[in-house]
Amino acid sequence: MKVYFAPQSRSVRTVWLLEEIGKDYELERFTLGQKEMRGPEYLEINPNGRVPTVEDGDTLISESTAIAQYLGAKYAPELTPGPDAANFAEYLQWLHYAEGMIMPPINTIVVETILLPPDRRNPDNAARAMKLLNRTLLAVEAHMDGREFIAGSFTVADTITGHAVIMSRRLGGDFSALPNLNAYADRLEAREAFKKADAA
Amino acid sequence: MKVYFAPQSRSVRTVWLLEEIGKDYELERFTLGQKEMRGPEYLEINPNGRVPTVEDGDTLISESTAIAQYLGAKYAPELTPGPDAANFAEYLQWLHYAEGMIMPPINTIVVETILLPPDRRNPDNAARAMKLLNRTLLAVEAHMDGREFIAGSFTVADTITGHAVIMSRRLGGDFSALPNLNAYADRLEAREAFKKADAA
Repeated sequence: MKVYFAPQSRSVRTVWLLEEIGKDYELERFTLGQKEMRGPEYLEINPNGRVPTVEDGDTLISESTAIAQYLGAKYAPELTPGPDAANFAEYLQWLHYAEGMIMPPINTIVVETILLPPDRRNPDNAARAMKLLNRTLLAVEAHMDGREFIAGSFTVADTITGHAVIMSRRLGGDFSALPNLNAYADRLEAREAFKKADAA
Repeated sequence: MKVYFAPQSRSVRTVWLLEEIGKDYELERFTLGQKEMRGPEYLEINPNGRVPTVEDGDTLISESTAIAQYLGAKYAPELTPGPDAANFAEYLQWLHYAEGMIMPPINTIVVETILLPPDRRNPDNAARAMKLLNRTLLAVEAHMDGREFIAGSFTVADTITGHAVIMSRRLGGDFSALPNLNAYADRLEAREAFKKADAA
Protein backbone atom coordinates (compact mmCIF):
# COMPACT_ATOMS: atom_id res chain seq x y z
CA MET A 1 0.00 0.00 0.00
CA LYS A 2 1.40 3.37 -1.02
CA VAL A 3 0.11 6.71 0.30
CA TYR A 4 0.84 9.97 -1.55
CA PHE A 5 1.25 12.26 1.40
CA ALA A 6 2.01 15.80 2.52
CA PRO A 7 2.24 16.95 6.15
CA GLN A 8 -0.59 19.18 7.43
CA SER A 9 -2.92 18.11 4.62
CA ARG A 10 -5.97 15.86 4.40
CA SER A 11 -3.52 13.00 3.79
CA VAL A 12 -2.84 12.94 7.56
CA ARG A 13 -6.33 11.42 7.83
CA THR A 14 -5.29 8.45 5.70
CA VAL A 15 -2.09 7.73 7.60
CA TRP A 16 -3.94 8.12 10.89
CA LEU A 17 -6.50 5.52 9.84
CA LEU A 18 -3.82 3.11 8.60
CA GLU A 19 -2.06 3.48 11.97
CA GLU A 20 -5.36 2.78 13.78
CA ILE A 21 -5.87 -0.33 11.65
CA GLY A 22 -2.25 -1.40 12.02
CA LYS A 23 -1.75 -1.86 8.30
CA ASP A 24 1.68 -1.38 6.68
CA TYR A 25 2.12 1.40 4.16
CA GLU A 26 4.80 3.27 2.33
CA LEU A 27 4.78 7.08 2.04
CA GLU A 28 5.44 9.01 -1.13
CA ARG A 29 6.17 12.43 0.32
CA PHE A 30 5.42 15.90 -0.92
CA THR A 31 5.17 19.24 0.79
CA LEU A 32 2.04 21.29 0.09
CA GLY A 33 2.63 23.66 -2.82
CA GLN A 34 5.71 21.74 -4.03
CA LYS A 35 5.87 21.96 -7.81
CA GLU A 36 6.26 18.19 -8.23
CA MET A 37 2.62 17.86 -7.07
CA ARG A 38 1.68 19.54 -10.38
CA GLY A 39 4.27 17.65 -12.43
CA PRO A 40 3.23 15.28 -15.23
CA GLU A 41 4.22 12.19 -13.28
CA TYR A 42 1.96 12.87 -10.29
CA LEU A 43 -0.85 14.27 -12.46
CA GLU A 44 -1.08 10.76 -13.95
CA ILE A 45 -1.81 9.51 -10.42
CA ASN A 46 -4.04 12.40 -9.34
CA PRO A 47 -5.13 14.76 -12.15
CA ASN A 48 -5.70 17.60 -9.68
CA GLY A 49 -2.29 17.26 -8.06
CA ARG A 50 -3.87 16.73 -4.65
CA VAL A 51 -3.09 14.43 -1.74
CA PRO A 52 -3.97 11.91 -0.46
CA THR A 53 -4.05 9.26 -3.15
CA VAL A 54 -3.69 5.58 -2.22
CA GLU A 55 -2.37 2.74 -4.33
CA ASP A 56 -3.55 -0.60 -2.98
CA GLY A 57 -2.47 -3.31 -5.41
CA ASP A 58 -4.19 -2.43 -8.68
CA THR A 59 -6.56 0.01 -7.00
CA LEU A 60 -5.89 3.75 -7.19
CA ILE A 61 -8.18 5.95 -5.12
CA SER A 62 -8.23 9.60 -4.09
CA GLU A 63 -10.51 11.87 -1.98
CA SER A 64 -9.72 11.39 1.69
CA THR A 65 -13.26 10.47 2.77
CA ALA A 66 -13.55 7.95 -0.08
CA ILE A 67 -10.23 6.43 0.98
CA ALA A 68 -11.44 6.21 4.59
CA GLN A 69 -14.59 4.37 3.53
CA TYR A 70 -12.58 2.12 1.22
CA LEU A 71 -9.93 1.21 3.81
CA GLY A 72 -12.53 0.76 6.52
CA ALA A 73 -14.71 -1.53 4.42
CA LYS A 74 -11.74 -3.59 3.20
CA TYR A 75 -9.59 -3.83 6.32
CA ALA A 76 -11.50 -2.62 9.39
CA PRO A 77 -15.24 -3.22 9.06
CA GLU A 78 -15.54 -2.73 12.83
CA LEU A 79 -14.74 0.97 12.21
CA THR A 80 -17.46 1.47 9.56
CA PRO A 81 -21.02 0.90 10.87
CA GLY A 82 -23.23 -0.79 8.27
CA PRO A 83 -26.95 -0.47 7.46
CA ASP A 84 -27.94 -2.74 10.36
CA ALA A 85 -26.03 -0.76 13.00
CA ALA A 86 -28.03 1.56 15.28
CA ASN A 87 -25.57 4.40 14.55
CA PHE A 88 -25.52 3.97 10.74
CA ALA A 89 -27.27 7.27 9.90
CA GLU A 90 -25.36 9.17 12.60
CA TYR A 91 -22.07 7.72 11.34
CA LEU A 92 -22.78 8.74 7.74
CA GLN A 93 -24.05 12.21 8.58
CA TRP A 94 -20.99 13.10 10.65
CA LEU A 95 -18.57 11.42 8.25
CA HIS A 96 -19.84 13.74 5.51
CA TYR A 97 -20.08 16.82 7.71
CA ALA A 98 -16.36 17.54 7.28
CA GLU A 99 -16.31 18.11 3.51
CA GLY A 100 -19.88 19.38 3.32
CA MET A 101 -19.70 21.97 6.09
CA ILE A 102 -16.33 22.43 7.80
CA MET A 103 -13.80 22.23 4.98
CA PRO A 104 -15.20 24.89 2.59
CA PRO A 105 -14.44 27.74 5.03
CA ILE A 106 -11.15 26.05 6.00
CA ASN A 107 -10.13 25.96 2.32
CA THR A 108 -10.76 29.72 2.10
CA ILE A 109 -8.84 30.44 5.32
CA VAL A 110 -5.84 28.41 4.12
CA VAL A 111 -5.86 30.12 0.70
CA GLU A 112 -6.26 33.63 2.16
CA THR A 113 -3.79 33.34 5.05
CA ILE A 114 -1.15 30.84 3.84
CA LEU A 115 -1.21 29.96 0.13
CA LEU A 116 -1.72 33.34 -1.58
CA PRO A 117 1.19 35.79 -1.65
CA PRO A 118 0.47 38.56 0.91
CA ASP A 119 -0.29 41.25 -1.69
CA ARG A 120 -3.07 39.11 -3.21
CA ARG A 121 -4.83 38.23 0.07
CA ASN A 122 -8.24 39.65 0.91
CA PRO A 123 -8.79 39.95 4.69
CA ASP A 124 -12.56 40.24 4.18
CA ASN A 125 -12.65 36.75 2.66
CA ALA A 126 -10.66 35.27 5.56
CA ALA A 127 -12.84 37.03 8.15
CA ARG A 128 -16.07 35.87 6.49
CA ALA A 129 -14.77 32.29 6.27
CA MET A 130 -13.72 32.31 9.94
CA LYS A 131 -17.19 33.51 10.96
CA LEU A 132 -18.77 30.72 8.91
CA LEU A 133 -16.32 28.15 10.31
CA ASN A 134 -17.18 29.13 13.88
CA ARG A 135 -20.90 28.86 13.13
CA THR A 136 -20.41 25.48 11.45
CA LEU A 137 -18.67 24.07 14.53
CA LEU A 138 -21.66 24.83 16.79
CA ALA A 139 -23.64 21.86 15.47
CA VAL A 140 -20.70 19.54 16.17
CA GLU A 141 -20.33 21.00 19.68
CA ALA A 142 -24.00 20.31 20.41
CA HIS A 143 -23.79 16.82 18.92
CA MET A 144 -20.70 15.90 20.98
CA ASP A 145 -22.47 16.54 24.27
CA GLY A 146 -22.09 13.31 26.23
CA ARG A 147 -20.33 11.52 23.35
CA GLU A 148 -16.78 10.25 23.37
CA PHE A 149 -16.55 9.87 19.58
CA ILE A 150 -18.61 11.36 16.80
CA ALA A 151 -20.73 8.27 16.13
CA GLY A 152 -20.57 6.90 19.69
CA SER A 153 -17.68 4.44 19.41
CA PHE A 154 -14.51 5.24 17.45
CA THR A 155 -15.14 5.00 13.67
CA VAL A 156 -13.46 6.22 10.50
CA ALA A 157 -15.66 9.33 10.81
CA ASP A 158 -13.40 10.47 13.67
CA THR A 159 -10.39 10.42 11.35
CA ILE A 160 -12.27 12.71 8.94
CA THR A 161 -14.54 15.09 10.84
CA GLY A 162 -12.37 14.78 13.95
CA HIS A 163 -9.41 15.84 11.83
CA ALA A 164 -11.42 18.79 10.49
CA VAL A 165 -12.14 19.81 14.10
CA ILE A 166 -8.43 19.59 14.98
CA MET A 167 -7.58 21.68 11.88
CA SER A 168 -10.21 24.25 12.86
CA ARG A 169 -8.61 24.66 16.28
CA ARG A 170 -5.09 24.91 14.87
CA LEU A 171 -6.16 27.50 12.29
CA GLY A 172 -7.53 29.78 14.99
CA GLY A 173 -11.19 28.85 15.18
CA ASP A 174 -12.86 30.28 18.29
CA PHE A 175 -13.00 27.32 20.70
CA SER A 176 -13.55 29.47 23.81
CA ALA A 177 -17.20 28.39 24.08
CA LEU A 178 -16.78 24.86 22.69
CA PRO A 179 -15.91 22.68 25.71
CA ASN A 180 -17.09 19.46 24.08
CA LEU A 181 -15.01 20.07 20.96
CA ASN A 182 -11.95 21.05 22.96
CA ALA A 183 -12.18 17.80 24.90
CA TYR A 184 -12.84 15.83 21.70
CA ALA A 185 -9.85 17.36 19.90
CA ASP A 186 -7.64 16.71 22.96
CA ARG A 187 -8.83 13.10 23.07
CA LEU A 188 -8.07 12.55 19.39
CA GLU A 189 -4.68 14.30 19.50
CA ALA A 190 -3.68 12.02 22.39
CA ARG A 191 -4.14 8.84 20.33
CA GLU A 192 -0.87 7.17 19.34
CA ALA A 193 -2.08 6.60 15.79
CA PHE A 194 -2.90 10.29 15.38
CA LYS A 195 0.45 11.34 16.82
CA LYS A 196 2.31 9.19 14.32
CA ALA A 197 0.34 10.58 11.38
CA ASP A 198 0.70 14.14 12.66
CA ALA A 199 4.49 13.74 12.89
CA ALA A 200 4.88 11.93 9.55
CA MET B 1 -40.40 9.41 4.71
CA LYS B 2 -40.24 13.20 4.84
CA VAL B 3 -37.75 15.30 2.85
CA TYR B 4 -36.99 18.90 3.83
CA PHE B 5 -36.56 20.41 0.42
CA ALA B 6 -35.86 23.57 -1.55
CA PRO B 7 -35.79 23.83 -5.35
CA GLN B 8 -32.36 24.31 -6.96
CA SER B 9 -30.53 23.09 -3.87
CA ARG B 10 -28.67 19.91 -2.96
CA SER B 11 -32.05 18.53 -1.83
CA VAL B 12 -32.88 17.89 -5.51
CA ARG B 13 -30.34 15.04 -5.24
CA THR B 14 -32.40 13.36 -2.53
CA VAL B 15 -35.70 13.59 -4.37
CA TRP B 16 -34.03 12.40 -7.56
CA LEU B 17 -32.71 9.30 -5.80
CA LEU B 18 -36.09 8.57 -4.18
CA GLU B 19 -37.71 8.83 -7.62
CA GLU B 20 -35.08 6.44 -9.04
CA ILE B 21 -35.79 3.99 -6.21
CA GLY B 22 -39.54 4.44 -6.51
CA LYS B 23 -40.00 5.12 -2.83
CA ASP B 24 -42.83 7.33 -1.56
CA TYR B 25 -41.96 10.54 0.24
CA GLU B 26 -43.54 13.73 1.43
CA LEU B 27 -41.93 17.12 0.83
CA GLU B 28 -41.58 19.85 3.42
CA ARG B 29 -40.93 22.83 1.17
CA PHE B 30 -38.75 25.86 1.60
CA THR B 31 -37.23 28.31 -0.83
CA LEU B 32 -33.50 28.99 -0.48
CA GLY B 33 -32.91 31.99 1.76
CA GLN B 34 -36.44 31.86 3.22
CA LYS B 35 -36.31 33.01 6.84
CA GLU B 36 -38.20 29.93 8.10
CA MET B 37 -35.09 27.88 7.25
CA ARG B 38 -33.37 29.75 10.12
CA GLY B 39 -36.39 29.63 12.41
CA PRO B 40 -36.29 27.79 15.76
CA GLU B 41 -38.56 24.99 14.51
CA TYR B 42 -36.36 23.98 11.58
CA LEU B 43 -33.12 24.55 13.51
CA GLU B 44 -34.29 21.73 15.79
CA ILE B 45 -34.32 19.49 12.70
CA ASN B 46 -31.15 20.87 11.09
CA PRO B 47 -29.06 23.15 13.31
CA ASN B 48 -27.49 24.85 10.28
CA GLY B 49 -30.81 25.57 8.61
CA ARG B 50 -29.76 23.66 5.50
CA VAL B 51 -31.57 21.27 3.18
CA PRO B 52 -31.87 18.37 2.57
CA THR B 53 -32.74 16.64 5.81
CA VAL B 54 -34.62 13.34 5.74
CA GLU B 55 -36.89 11.87 8.40
CA ASP B 56 -37.26 8.13 7.93
CA GLY B 57 -39.24 6.76 10.86
CA ASP B 58 -37.14 7.58 13.92
CA THR B 59 -34.06 8.38 11.84
CA LEU B 60 -33.12 11.98 11.13
CA ILE B 61 -30.25 12.49 8.71
CA SER B 62 -28.75 15.44 6.85
CA GLU B 63 -25.85 16.03 4.40
CA SER B 64 -26.96 15.05 0.89
CA THR B 65 -24.17 12.54 0.25
CA ALA B 66 -24.79 10.86 3.62
CA ILE B 67 -28.49 10.65 2.78
CA ALA B 68 -27.67 9.11 -0.61
CA GLN B 69 -25.50 6.43 1.01
CA TYR B 70 -28.14 5.82 3.67
CA LEU B 71 -31.07 5.51 1.24
CA GLY B 72 -29.01 3.40 -1.16
CA ALA B 73 -27.86 0.98 1.53
CA LYS B 74 -31.35 0.67 3.05
CA TYR B 75 -33.56 0.63 -0.04
CA ALA B 76 -31.49 0.17 -3.21
CA PRO B 77 -28.30 -1.81 -2.54
CA GLU B 78 -28.01 -2.38 -6.32
CA LEU B 79 -27.20 1.35 -6.62
CA THR B 80 -24.39 1.28 -4.02
CA PRO B 81 -21.46 -0.97 -4.97
CA GLY B 82 -19.99 -2.76 -1.94
CA PRO B 83 -16.44 -3.83 -1.05
CA ASP B 84 -16.62 -6.91 -3.29
CA ALA B 85 -17.68 -4.99 -6.40
CA ALA B 86 -15.03 -4.30 -9.06
CA ASN B 87 -16.06 -0.63 -9.14
CA PHE B 88 -16.08 -0.10 -5.34
CA ALA B 89 -13.09 2.29 -5.21
CA GLU B 90 -14.19 4.12 -8.36
CA TYR B 91 -17.70 4.49 -6.98
CA LEU B 92 -16.46 5.93 -3.68
CA GLN B 93 -13.93 8.28 -5.25
CA TRP B 94 -16.45 9.82 -7.62
CA LEU B 95 -19.22 9.91 -5.03
CA HIS B 96 -16.97 12.07 -2.85
CA TYR B 97 -15.59 14.17 -5.69
CA ALA B 98 -18.67 16.45 -5.63
CA GLU B 99 -18.29 17.83 -2.10
CA GLY B 100 -14.51 17.53 -2.04
CA MET B 101 -13.75 19.25 -5.34
CA ILE B 102 -16.72 20.64 -7.28
CA MET B 103 -18.96 22.16 -4.63
CA PRO B 104 -16.47 24.48 -2.86
CA PRO B 105 -16.12 26.74 -5.94
CA ILE B 106 -19.85 26.37 -6.65
CA ASN B 107 -20.62 27.57 -3.10
CA THR B 108 -18.52 30.68 -3.74
CA ILE B 109 -20.11 31.35 -7.13
CA VAL B 110 -23.63 31.07 -5.65
CA VAL B 111 -22.73 33.36 -2.73
CA GLU B 112 -21.01 35.96 -4.95
CA THR B 113 -23.54 36.04 -7.81
CA ILE B 114 -26.88 35.20 -6.17
CA LEU B 115 -27.01 35.27 -2.37
CA LEU B 116 -25.07 38.43 -1.47
CA PRO B 117 -26.72 41.81 -2.13
CA PRO B 118 -25.06 43.34 -5.24
CA ASP B 119 -23.14 46.02 -3.31
CA ARG B 120 -21.40 43.36 -1.18
CA ARG B 121 -20.33 41.09 -4.06
CA ASN B 122 -16.67 40.76 -5.05
CA PRO B 123 -16.25 39.91 -8.76
CA ASP B 124 -12.66 38.73 -8.14
CA ASN B 125 -13.95 35.97 -5.85
CA ALA B 126 -16.51 34.81 -8.41
CA ALA B 127 -13.93 34.85 -11.22
CA ARG B 128 -11.38 32.90 -9.19
CA ALA B 129 -14.03 30.33 -8.19
CA MET B 130 -15.16 29.92 -11.81
CA LYS B 131 -11.57 29.31 -12.91
CA LEU B 132 -11.16 26.68 -10.18
CA LEU B 133 -14.51 25.09 -11.05
CA ASN B 134 -13.52 24.77 -14.72
CA ARG B 135 -10.19 23.18 -13.74
CA THR B 136 -11.93 20.80 -11.34
CA LEU B 137 -14.25 19.54 -14.09
CA LEU B 138 -11.35 18.45 -16.30
CA ALA B 139 -10.70 15.33 -14.23
CA VAL B 140 -14.37 14.33 -14.51
CA GLU B 141 -14.28 14.95 -18.28
CA ALA B 142 -11.25 12.66 -18.64
CA HIS B 143 -12.81 10.02 -16.39
CA MET B 144 -16.10 10.01 -18.33
CA ASP B 145 -14.39 9.08 -21.59
CA GLY B 146 -16.18 5.92 -22.76
CA ARG B 147 -18.36 5.75 -19.64
CA GLU B 148 -22.12 6.09 -19.52
CA PHE B 149 -22.29 6.72 -15.77
CA ILE B 150 -19.65 7.84 -13.31
CA ALA B 151 -18.95 4.41 -11.82
CA GLY B 152 -19.86 2.43 -14.97
CA SER B 153 -23.48 1.51 -14.28
CA PHE B 154 -25.93 3.98 -12.71
CA THR B 155 -25.26 4.39 -8.95
CA VAL B 156 -26.13 6.90 -6.25
CA ALA B 157 -22.86 8.67 -7.17
CA ASP B 158 -24.59 9.93 -10.33
CA THR B 159 -27.24 11.67 -8.22
CA ILE B 160 -24.46 13.46 -6.32
CA THR B 161 -21.51 14.19 -8.60
CA GLY B 162 -23.78 14.09 -11.66
CA HIS B 163 -25.94 16.73 -9.99
CA ALA B 164 -22.82 18.82 -9.29
CA VAL B 165 -21.93 18.57 -13.00
CA ILE B 166 -25.44 19.70 -13.98
CA MET B 167 -25.21 22.62 -11.51
CA SER B 168 -21.80 23.57 -12.93
CA ARG B 169 -23.26 23.80 -16.42
CA ARG B 170 -26.31 25.79 -15.29
CA LEU B 171 -24.13 28.23 -13.34
CA GLY B 172 -22.10 29.05 -16.44
CA GLY B 173 -19.14 26.68 -16.22
CA ASP B 174 -17.21 26.51 -19.49
CA PHE B 175 -18.41 23.29 -21.13
CA SER B 176 -17.18 24.22 -24.62
CA ALA B 177 -14.31 21.72 -24.45
CA LEU B 178 -16.08 19.12 -22.29
CA PRO B 179 -17.92 16.84 -24.74
CA ASN B 180 -18.08 13.89 -22.36
CA LEU B 181 -19.56 16.02 -19.57
CA ASN B 182 -22.05 17.67 -21.90
CA ALA B 183 -23.29 14.26 -23.02
CA TYR B 184 -23.32 13.00 -19.42
CA ALA B 185 -25.32 16.00 -18.17
CA ASP B 186 -27.76 15.62 -21.10
CA ARG B 187 -28.17 11.93 -20.30
CA LEU B 188 -28.90 12.62 -16.64
CA GLU B 189 -31.27 15.52 -17.33
CA ALA B 190 -33.27 13.24 -19.65
CA ARG B 191 -34.05 10.74 -16.87
CA GLU B 192 -37.66 10.85 -15.70
CA ALA B 193 -36.61 10.67 -12.06
CA PHE B 194 -34.32 13.68 -12.47
CA LYS B 195 -37.01 15.66 -14.29
CA LYS B 196 -39.47 15.10 -11.44
CA ALA B 197 -36.94 16.21 -8.83
CA ASP B 198 -35.87 19.21 -10.91
CA ALA B 199 -39.49 20.35 -11.26
CA ALA B 200 -40.42 19.68 -7.60
